[in-house]
Amino acid sequence: MPRKHRVVDEKRVLRRLERFGKNIVDQIMKDQPPRIVVPIRTLANTVWSRKERILKLGSRKAIREFFDIGESKRFMQTVLMLSIIIRARREGDYPTIRDLYYTGKHTITYVDEYGRRRTEETWDTQRESNAVIQDIEVATGLLREHMGIMHDTKGKIAGNMIIRSKGSDIDLSRMGSGAYAIPPNVDNLEIRRVDADWVLVVEKDAIFHRLNEEEFWRKNNCILMTGKGQPDRSTRRMVRRLWEEYSLPVYILTDSDSYGFYIYSVYRSGSISLSYESERLATPEARFLGLTPSDITEYKIPKNFIIKATDRDIKRAKELLAYPWFKESKAWIKELNIFLKKKEKVEIEALSGHGFKFLSRVYIPEKIKKKKWIE
Amino acid sequence: MPRKHRVVDEKRVLRRLERFGKNIVDQIMKDQPPRIVVPIRTLANTVWSRKERILKLGSRKAIREFFDIGESKRFMQTVLMLSIIIRARREGDYPTIRDLYYTGKHTITYVDEYGRRRTEETWDTQRESNAVIQDIEVATGLLREHMGIMHDTKGKIAGNMIIRSKGSDIDLSRMGSGAYAIPPNVDNLEIRRVDADWVLVVEKDAIFHRLNEEEFWRKNNCILMTGKGQPDRSTRRMVRRLWEEYSLPVYILTDSDSYGFYIYSVYRSGSISLSYESERLATPEARFLGLTPSDITEYKIPKNFIIKATDRDIKRAKELLAYPWFKESKAWIKELNIFLKKKEKVEIEALSGHGFKFLSRVYIPEKIKKKKWIE
Repeated sequence: MPRKHRVVDEKRVLRRLERFGKNIVDQIMKDQPPRIVVPIRTLANTVWSRKERILKLGSRKAIREFFDIGESKRFMQTVLMLSIIIRARREGDYPTIRDLYYTGKHTITYVDEYGRRRTEETWDTQRESNAVIQDIEVATGLLREHMGIMHDTKGKIAGNMIIRSKGSDIDLSRMGSGAYAIPPNVDNLEIRRVDADWVLVVEKDAIFHRLNEEEFWRKNNCILMTGKGQPDRSTRRMVRRLWEEYSLPVYILTDSDSYGFYIYSVYRSGSISLSYESERLATPEARFLGLTPSDITEYKIPKNFIIKATDRDIKRAKELLAYPWFKESKAWIKELNIFLKKKEKVEIEALSGHGFKFLSRVYIPEKIKKKKWIE
Repeated sequence: MPRKHRVVDEKRVLRRLERFGKNIVDQIMKDQPPRIVVPIRTLANTVWSRKERILKLGSRKAIREFFDIGESKRFMQTVLMLSIIIRARREGDYPTIRDLYYTGKHTITYVDEYGRRRTEETWDTQRESNAVIQDIEVATGLLREHMGIMHDTKGKIAGNMIIRSKGSDIDLSRMGSGAYAIPPNVDNLEIRRVDADWVLVVEKDAIFHRLNEEEFWRKNNCILMTGKGQPDRSTRRMVRRLWEEYSLPVYILTDSDSYGFYIYSVYRSGSISLSYESERLATPEARFLGLTPSDITEYKIPKNFIIKATDRDIKRAKELLAYPWFKESKAWIKELNIFLKKKEKVEIEALSGHGFKFLSRVYIPEKIKKKKWIE
């Protein structure tokens, strides 16, 4: 029995945004100095929750006072962005984060305490306007996707499942050689049926197409996905929903290098910059299928297929070893130490040395059957 | 009445590849020195066809002799790659270009004329193996997609059209908030029905999602596509097919900068590196909808939305002015000169200054209705 998912209710989203704004108005009407409370999104307030096995925001909150000269600009930026987002929701618009930046960007002319005419930009870069969007996300507990904000997506999915979106039932087993391109707001999708035993997430888009062309997902009764390298929020949310609502085991397949290990880490535990969203984006039981550093000997990868790890790879692997979710895993300690000792990287495609069918007919099914994933 | 498209016939592809190989065997059996004839893919052999309005390969061909010491390695690489591709086709495999690189990569040990034992790699980098794949493409007249070779794709499409792939009819008007991810081999898709008046190709993925969420394509009876910046082969092939088989006008929407202008140029006329494929990938009647440098005044873009062009932008714009398909267009000469004079760039999203609906309700429909595109 799948766990119930509630599709985003646009009216509820609007009400919550309006409540956030109304709270500021109420303060002003009561002659109180306006202030907003925003959970802090810094590294110092990012904690590893051992119980939930995800990175999440700590409990520290910032109080942003309008009458504090050091905070008034950010306060005003927040109110400006909030008003733009509320307007977009009321009018059924779907702006991109770049649209929001431009819509809010204007020059304010004012007279300073010495009577000089001065100007100031509402914001200079999109970094500033994006940070304000994130503040609104954490303060209201809404994801920006729920607010109808659009962004680039790169995730693809195919397999025996049916989703419903905008009144259409979409059968992801009938996409032919193509696939379903995952939309920005995954929570607006209703998953109506899943007939699969597990989820395979491959790092590389070209490998996705190769396995899709072979109909790997049909032969192995799984859902096939890719996030094209470091996954975006929407791909991560889709993986999370399949695990959470349908209890499907999730396997991550990447190259054997620090970059690949980190991709697994983001799917599983979340990232520092988006720790405030791990509860919705991370899949704390995701398993790393490979390639592992010990696969190099296990699967007899020819010497001339091996790539020398760079200093950056080594530095990154050492950082990974310090993360709790790696450092508390015997299997990962072993693999990362092999990587650090041998300094050898290898790509998924190197398995082609054993024939093009080796990956889909031997490597993946064997690793799953023999429980040779690590986590 | 749509123009007939023939879905790739795998048997014919295999026969053509085998014929290429058999020709070499025949030479050997007749005691002739083995040689292969390959059209030259250099800039010097790339010509602008004024009549067809595309960049294409000239008529120069290279004769690669096995017994010429300077060419024997490339000759052997070509035969090696050909044998791998033929094997994949015979066994129904869909290797990626990276898979082909690894499969062919091995160390050859030989004894030189002084009796010394020496070794040589079949190829050192994927650049080498890719070049050989391209040789086989031009020599056989087959696209690598026809040979079942997989690669990354990033194109998305939605609209009133039905395609058929692997036995499924796929209705691209029923993708909900998502879209159809274009597969590597677009020629394997059968386009069964198109009910649209034109094609809109937007540079940016986030803008694609915004217009898709609004169902712009439904309201305007068009096909909506994106190639995410510089388009890949598959997206270009899809655009070409809609223009060629269904005579749909194609409009390209990008930022107003050299990068955006070049994206239009690639859709329309082809690129130098893939000039041997322009006949299948370019859309010589593609129209540039905007944003143009004169849109900045025409649409009253606020001053603080304008970005200063970099030296690189300027250099690039000057190069574009030298391309025949720009230099022979009065409209483009005018626009590029405005760009060079004012040195001002502007993004599509800057139109949001006039409200989020301005792009979809005013800018695009108005430009098309009043024929304000340029070409």
